[in-house]
Amino acid sequence: MLHVPIAALLAAAAATPTTPARPSPGQVAQSAPAGEWTLIADDDLLVMTLAGPSGTMRRVMIQLMPSPVSSAWVANIRRLAAAHWWDATSINRVQDNYVAQWGDASEKKPLPPGLGATSAADYTLRWRALPASSGPVTELGTDGRAADVYARGIFWYRGFPMATDAKPVSDERRAWPIHCYGSVGVGRNLAPDAGTGAELYAVIGHAPRHLDRNIAVVGRVIARMEYLSSLPRGTGDLGFYEKPGERTAIINVRMASELPANERLRYSYLSTSGTTWPRYIAARRNREPPFFEQPADAADVCNIPVPTRAEPTDR
Amino acid sequence: MLHVPIAALLAAAAATPTTPARPSPGQVAQSAPAGEWTLIADDDLLVMTLAGPSGTMRRVMIQLMPSPVSSAWVANIRRLAAAHWWDATSINRVQDNYVAQWGDASEKKPLPPGLGATSAADYTLRWRALPASSGPVTELGTDGRAADVYARGIFWYRGFPMATDAKPVSDERRAWPIHCYGSVGVGRNLAPDAGTGAELYAVIGHAPRHLDRNIAVVGRVIARMEYLSSLPRGTGDLGFYEKPGERTAIINVRMASELPANERLRYSYLSTSGTTWPRYIAARRNREPPFFEQPADAADVCNIPVPTRAEPTDR
Repeated sequence: MLHVPIAALLAAAAATPTTPARPSPGQVAQSAPAGEWTLIADDDLLVMTLAGPSGTMRRVMIQLMPSPVSSAWVANIRRLAAAHWWDATSINRVQDNYVAQWGDASEKKPLPPGLGATSAADYTLRWRALPASSGPVTELGTDGRAADVYARGIFWYRGFPMATDAKPVSDERRAWPIHCYGSVGVGRNLAPDAGTGAELYAVIGHAPRHLDRNIAVVGRVIARMEYLSSLPRGTGDLGFYEKPGERTAIINVRMASELPANERLRYSYLSTSGTTWPRYIAARRNREPPFFEQPADAADVCNIPVPTRAEPTDR
Repeated sequence: MLHVPIAALLAAAAATPTTPARPSPGQVAQSAPAGEWTLIADDDLLVMTLAGPSGTMRRVMIQLMPSPVSSAWVANIRRLAAAHWWDATSINRVQDNYVAQWGDASEKKPLPPGLGATSAADYTLRWRALPASSGPVTELGTDGRAADVYARGIFWYRGFPMATDAKPVSDERRAWPIHCYGSVGVGRNLAPDAGTGAELYAVIGHAPRHLDRNIAVVGRVIARMEYLSSLPRGTGDLGFYEKPGERTAIINVRMASELPANERLRYSYLSTSGTTWPRYIAARRNREPPFFEQPADAADVCNIPVPTRAEPTDR
């Protein structure tokens, strides 16, 4: 424990000289076969470059939601990025324990042609619209406790947490993406507006699950989340900045596929349909000794974040 | 909607010209009888003054846990504050989606005399040690969903969220405080160390409920949480700052009762045993139209934050 600060939370995993008998969640993930680390395609990776202090640039990486979930909005986001629409826009709202939100502060910038219509009906989708490989639904935890407070069942679809209702697997069962820390959603006005995808937010606090099925979830921040979560909070209503100078400038937003090859970064996520995933969940439910003496035998869906990692590039 | 930015999340509550048929959680809280807004005693309010930018000062307000919960640690915290022990210490660790932690970075500052012993046995307490007024335990939500993923029952005790096991109300039933966003806990080394209270952290992300029963919860941040949550994240292991200059200086920490009368601020919280509290929970479970079209009919315990507000002072 020599170089570990006194009372360092979770010091155990980093500092215990002998490997604990039960591996940490991170150790379980890193021990996965290489094939279970799934590369995120350049066409699924949105790169938002912010103005940092002293002329620096800060790149936030966002993985887009896999089809067919929220696909109308995701298609629009690809079009907005291709049109360079977010260039010279800004982060306009940061509300503590809630969201950081970005888009066109003037509300007057014309949208590019070709955006598709969106509908609140698509906040959820038919269970049968998902591929059969979507994975098992967890309906009950142990000891009679439920797997989730908000929905009857939870599962993961290609790296994203999802919820479902209790109906039998039939045309009637619906599924929907979940708001967790880091989730990216689509700002909207009152219904019937369902948002175009031009106004986006990232969750920077406790999971606001009451937004589920009320708003489209389109992705999640997979790297450099701190560039959003550590921004100064806005002092206006709902966390909007009161002065234009308080906003963080967005230099540009690009699909990784549009970046020059020598600027691309590559990320992968731990497959949520492989053999390691259930072991990772188990490690999250019962954290490793010696620091954790009272295992929880439980983990809520947002306390089981899908691991991601940077992969070597060719440079 | 004239002055409301397009797609402002939750714009409804702030901007709809007519009052919605169902009030928002905030409206329910503000409509409570004055007697249900409970003044926080000066001896339960810890004031941490941080160095802000350009020579400014930033005061974070922490409400201490009511007796008998975590009382050994809370007693130590009052002694540490009385000894001015935290003066000229610092915030040493900020880990994204987890905690901001403060104390003596040198690990060499002698503790003041008179601190009491602490024990992991007191992470939980006997149900019967709580006053009979602790309030009802919620064991089940609607539609067969549980009230909580981590515990069999949840309740609130004098403004703080608590959990309990499933045993009958007898000497065997245990209760314990819950980690939510803003909760303040006691850093510790490996067991049998249970922490003195000198090393503290505040939760700045999704509720780390796996820490429940593994660590003492001693209070919660009730005002200016953003002074902790928006700090730059540390780049070392576990979010520790790698360079001393990155730490945020703590100018001092005082019980409000020790501050000069003209510097004291007064806060109150919405009673969790009054007639308004169940209505507030109901409003959190089913958020108000017109923005929310799909009510969740659920809210996890950490998505039901106990409202607080500043009260007028005599100045």
